[in-house]
Amino acid sequence: MPTQAHAYAAQSGESPLAPFNFQRRDVGPGDVSIDILYCGVCHSDLHTARGEWGGTLYPCVPGHEIVGRVTAIGGDVTDFAVGELVGVGCMVDSCGHCPSCEASEQQFCETTGMVGTYNGTDTISGGHTYGGYSDHIVVKQDFVVKVGHDEKDLAAVAPLLCAGITTYSPLRHWKVGPGQKVGVVGIGGLGHMGIKLAAAMGAHVVAFTTSPDKVEAAKALGAHEVVISKDDAAMAAHANSFHFILNTVAASHDLDRFMVLLRRDGTMTLVGAPEHPHPSPSVWNLLMNRRSLAGSPIGGIAETQEMLDFCRDNGITADVEIIPIDQIETAYARMLKSDIKYRFVIDMASLKQQPA
Amino acid sequence: MPTQAHAYAAQSGESPLAPFNFQRRDVGPGDVSIDILYCGVCHSDLHTARGEWGGTLYPCVPGHEIVGRVTAIGGDVTDFAVGELVGVGCMVDSCGHCPSCEASEQQFCETTGMVGTYNGTDTISGGHTYGGYSDHIVVKQDFVVKVGHDEKDLAAVAPLLCAGITTYSPLRHWKVGPGQKVGVVGIGGLGHMGIKLAAAMGAHVVAFTTSPDKVEAAKALGAHEVVISKDDAAMAAHANSFHFILNTVAASHDLDRFMVLLRRDGTMTLVGAPEHPHPSPSVWNLLMNRRSLAGSPIGGIAETQEMLDFCRDNGITADVEIIPIDQIETAYARMLKSDIKYRFVIDMASLKQQPA
Repeated sequence: MPTQAHAYAAQSGESPLAPFNFQRRDVGPGDVSIDILYCGVCHSDLHTARGEWGGTLYPCVPGHEIVGRVTAIGGDVTDFAVGELVGVGCMVDSCGHCPSCEASEQQFCETTGMVGTYNGTDTISGGHTYGGYSDHIVVKQDFVVKVGHDEKDLAAVAPLLCAGITTYSPLRHWKVGPGQKVGVVGIGGLGHMGIKLAAAMGAHVVAFTTSPDKVEAAKALGAHEVVISKDDAAMAAHANSFHFILNTVAASHDLDRFMVLLRRDGTMTLVGAPEHPHPSPSVWNLLMNRRSLAGSPIGGIAETQEMLDFCRDNGITADVEIIPIDQIETAYARMLKSDIKYRFVIDMASLKQQPA
Repeated sequence: MPTQAHAYAAQSGESPLAPFNFQRRDVGPGDVSIDILYCGVCHSDLHTARGEWGGTLYPCVPGHEIVGRVTAIGGDVTDFAVGELVGVGCMVDSCGHCPSCEASEQQFCETTGMVGTYNGTDTISGGHTYGGYSDHIVVKQDFVVKVGHDEKDLAAVAPLLCAGITTYSPLRHWKVGPGQKVGVVGIGGLGHMGIKLAAAMGAHVVAFTTSPDKVEAAKALGAHEVVISKDDAAMAAHANSFHFILNTVAASHDLDRFMVLLRRDGTMTLVGAPEHPHPSPSVWNLLMNRRSLAGSPIGGIAETQEMLDFCRDNGITADVEIIPIDQIETAYARMLKSDIKYRFVIDMASLKQQPA
């Protein structure tokens, strides 16, 4: 039978997140019910809760960087057991049979589109989906991944489910590895994961930041070099040298400063969409060196599992600051000032201390 | 010893092309001297002669779609013989030892840069290079390719040296072949070659044009479908379906109309640089389907030879209108009105009838 869920929700774009109760669906034959232990706080949560991208369905329960423990499984579930530590990322459903779904690239589902973990159309229960700022979630087993890290690291694993896969997927797709020079632009929630992952893949990693005070932090994350992107001479010294650049900056900026750093057949991949368009990139810079400008969203479920396993094997987690859920609005305010190294994670035990 | 060359040159950006004599260098040990039979007329010729891109060195002898017959070879030349039909494209030199040159991708030469067939720095004779609007040319053997077509087709082979390789190279680089749906945007000098080549490579070819009166012509070139790119419904019917789009339009236009037609992991490659920037392409369209926007200039020498052989084997030449050299300004005027199907080629015999 359906279960009562306790959560935090925005009731409108103007109202702060506040306690909210709703029903999670009964655990179906293919479902896994998960007691949520930690949920990372992504910029998308903030933009969606506040209706800044349009199309927000209220009440809005954000959260798509979910880790927790399995508390119940449906009769057809064979891959997960009660008590197991698992994760849920940005998607909870897709059509399952189009070429992209068949390739486990559900983020590109060609028929229904992927169903977001929150603010998606809930085709099973009706209405819209509610995310991870809640005490539990019921998810199709095909959208659940196994967490192999130590339980003590669980809070720092949560951001891997969005920030981790969003950076891991393009690094893998564009075949980053030893012998390559790889740039990571921006050192925030996504960028700090990009640096760690690219370094673990064996690349020579150069981090780009506008902030001289982030240099030491970037090196601590694993960057072999750090370049202040406002410094023309420092930038020019890297012209035509990068195999790949992962650009995590969502704010509108001059892409050409980075495009000219790509060597022959190099690609710069954007993982953030700016509110206002970037200045139009120079076609000449694309022609020269046969460069590419690409984009990449999250990653598929099989790749998310691969990423979690890679992170476990390489001792990688996110750098996090754990907060109680009643501090979420303060966390949002600090995120807007980039005052976080590098991801807030909600300790969901704090939700259970809230009035029901 | 140096030889007297007869040519047509612009003496300034404002003066029409007119007869001009200059010295070609002596045939060095590694050089091939070529009696030019035909030279194609590329948009670059016009823009350079008129100084529209800046940096034109006068007198300017344009022309980089050269076919002709070998009349002399240096003592170290083993690959070419007197009497052989050969071609010269957009480059006549490069450093020869950087990674790009080692890969026969001289267009990306990483030290000196490629030396253009005209308006380049002539490191052998000093001054700047003079192109194919002339009666003969002396070129390093490494930058000469063999023409295997029948001699009767020679005029129609000339445009392959620029328009052909500029479209062949990206089609090969992005691995166009059977089972793929490939778009070609624009049906001009470059586009008409793109259609022929992509069809010969086995792709399903869709041509895009703004001109309903080009539909039948595009089909005659080998397009399986033709879409009027101003027709929203016709465009929408092709959403998310293309593996690759070759965009030959150099005028500023809305790239997003074509980007949204790319399927997962599809690429649109630009082969022309607009005078004014394109409107900034949507990052969202890049993220969705993990699309790429790329650029590609000409192609390397090995690939130019491969292209000529491919065209010979597949019976491909350019569609041309042959003109005498004293009609070059009229040809330029018609090119600016797109009043040519699809390439002017100068019959260089007409030069020999000019006063010396």
